[in-house]
Amino acid sequence: MIFKGGNSVVSPRARLGRNVRIGDRSVIHDNVVLEDDVTIANDCVIGEPQSDYYEGEHYNNPETSIGSGSLIRSHAIVYAGVSLGSGFSCGHRVTIREGVSTGKSCRVGTLCDLQGNLTMGDYVWLHSNVHLGQGSLIEDFVFIYPYVVLTNDPLPPSDQLRGVTVRRYTQIGTMSVVMPGVEIGSNSLVGAGAVVTKNVEDFSCVVGNPAKRVKDVREMKMPDGTPAYPWPHRFDRGMPWAGIGYDAWIQSQTR
Amino acid sequence: MIFKGGNSVVSPRARLGRNVRIGDRSVIHDNVVLEDDVTIANDCVIGEPQSDYYEGEHYNNPETSIGSGSLIRSHAIVYAGVSLGSGFSCGHRVTIREGVSTGKSCRVGTLCDLQGNLTMGDYVWLHSNVHLGQGSLIEDFVFIYPYVVLTNDPLPPSDQLRGVTVRRYTQIGTMSVVMPGVEIGSNSLVGAGAVVTKNVEDFSCVVGNPAKRVKDVREMKMPDGTPAYPWPHRFDRGMPWAGIGYDAWIQSQTR
Amino acid sequence: MIFKGGNSVVSPRARLGRNVRIGDRSVIHDNVVLEDDVTIANDCVIGEPQSDYYEGEHYNNPETSIGSGSLIRSHAIVYAGVSLGSGFSCGHRVTIREGVSTGKSCRVGTLCDLQGNLTMGDYVWLHSNVHLGQGSLIEDFVFIYPYVVLTNDPLPPSDQLRGVTVRRYTQIGTMSVVMPGVEIGSNSLVGAGAVVTKNVEDFSCVVGNPAKRVKDVREMKMPDGTPAYPWPHRFDRGMPWAGIGYDAWIQSQTR
Repeated sequence: MIFKGGNSVVSPRARLGRNVRIGDRSVIHDNVVLEDDVTIANDCVIGEPQSDYYEGEHYNNPETSIGSGSLIRSHAIVYAGVSLGSGFSCGHRVTIREGVSTGKSCRVGTLCDLQGNLTMGDYVWLHSNVHLGQGSLIEDFVFIYPYVVLTNDPLPPSDQLRGVTVRRYTQIGTMSVVMPGVEIGSNSLVGAGAVVTKNVEDFSCVVGNPAKRVKDVREMKMPDGTPAYPWPHRFDRGMPWAGIGYDAWIQSQTR
Repeated sequence: MIFKGGNSVVSPRARLGRNVRIGDRSVIHDNVVLEDDVTIANDCVIGEPQSDYYEGEHYNNPETSIGSGSLIRSHAIVYAGVSLGSGFSCGHRVTIREGVSTGKSCRVGTLCDLQGNLTMGDYVWLHSNVHLGQGSLIEDFVFIYPYVVLTNDPLPPSDQLRGVTVRRYTQIGTMSVVMPGVEIGSNSLVGAGAVVTKNVEDFSCVVGNPAKRVKDVREMKMPDGTPAYPWPHRFDRGMPWAGIGYDAWIQSQTR
Repeated sequence: MIFKGGNSVVSPRARLGRNVRIGDRSVIHDNVVLEDDVTIANDCVIGEPQSDYYEGEHYNNPETSIGSGSLIRSHAIVYAGVSLGSGFSCGHRVTIREGVSTGKSCRVGTLCDLQGNLTMGDYVWLHSNVHLGQGSLIEDFVFIYPYVVLTNDPLPPSDQLRGVTVRRYTQIGTMSVVMPGVEIGSNSLVGAGAVVTKNVEDFSCVVGNPAKRVKDVREMKMPDGTPAYPWPHRFDRGMPWAGIGYDAWIQSQTR
């Protein structure tokens, strides 16, 4: 393993757990907390100072925390004031602004742009180049595919932002846009290229511009004829029910 | 403040004004002019050599100028032959190719890709990940939201490019595409996900693929029932009329 | 020329041809082969270790090869296990994952994201910010414009991926999405913002969401009334028939 930390800069005011690895040229700013077994690859900036930094002399960097076992791939920029849960991992060149809070085991793909002041639950997976506006609320086990934008300004420009809510287990297809304040119910499927202008009910498949409900996802089948949705019964890679099955896992959670 | 310029490289042929700050590992190439009070954050390249550089032995870098008080955030690549007006600011990882010229107080978001040979007026704000094709002309006070593409090639591939024109005060919603040679009038609103194939008249709201005019923006209301557009009467953050009101500012301009 | 390789790291297990130039801070990992006359600009990572690297102690980096005369612009990340043909060139900040294989003279624009395990023929040109899913097959002389996504998962999430196939000479307009398993025939034109849900026949122009065939491209004219498609008769910049004409080149190929 090559984590020599050549030309890296770690603030004396950062706190590092056991077995933390830091790559070349990465910068760890004031008040960053890296828990045990965190890996920061090359050329990352963790705890990037917020805008005030460029103006005031008495800037104090807010706390940034990265949970145990997380892997931050190269060229990430994580602002001060971010909290990433344990087992977080990301691709290259992600930008995560202040006020982002994630649960455990989230994945954020290459080039994602998290605009700040938003909340992600557990096991939220963002593929490459997803843009989440401020005020977004994303529940557990939601997967969002490339080039999706969650918006927040109904009448631009304004400062009256209304974030998007996405309920658990929902899948949002590539190149979709979700309009400000929209709530997408649980276990839904938003088709690629959809423009979602209205709330979406649970278990709905919506497609088109503007998006329309075309079916109940529970009618959709895999090539072998088995039900495709809800998907947790047929997909477990990286999920907490891997190896034991979704039903057994749910029972273990509700006990 | 931490602008030690560690491992940065500043060409002896660059000219720096008073109070210029340069971050770590940034490179300032030949014939770059940084006016007073410019801040270049970490890992930027200013005056990136054009394509000829890789071929010829006698390459001479064209002049690049960045106006007073500008803030270039980290990992920006600004090519030689760019002129950015005073008070310019940008997010992270922007790419600005040769022949881009901006007025004063423009903002360019993270990951924007300005393809070169295009003109932006004053107070043009590009949100994250906006792609402007060569030949674009964007007038004052235009705001463009994430993942918008202004195209320029009517019959690809060709070298007969026709840029897009956007008149002042217009707002272009996220994930829209504007087709080559289209002119979007002033004070208009292009809805998210629109594909704009024809010219748009002043004060028009257009949506859909292909985009159709659905109303006059002057019919649109804020939640409190006041008119939403034209927007300058209700939004002044960062605008030159902040604190005095748009009408008073306009009068001061026309005197 | 400034290729001092300051602070660059070249593995003793890499193999470099004649006249290879390497910029500042670039990293060339184990088992990378750079053929003659390759230029690697600043801040690149060539042969980025695959995921196993972060876990195992006995990781062995697969071979990565970059063909003669290639130009890799700054901030590229090319994973181990990639093979780029001769005359390859790319913009800034590209990400190329393991298992990508290209023919000769391909171009990949700034911010492109090649997800791995995909094949590109000769003279494939990707403009900025193109996303190619795993399993994509792109034949010779295909041009793809900004923000296009080639998808691969029909019923997300799943591990049953079906890549997109694009036949030769086809042009895919900006912000289009091609659905999993779709085959786009040769000499076709996909309009900007299209969502391509079904196979496309040769010589078809398709537009819209969902995309529909609107005409035969051979009916389309340039402004001077000459046929626009097939395009090789009217466009030769960077093509192997430049200077001799397409018909003469085809004859030389089939002899």
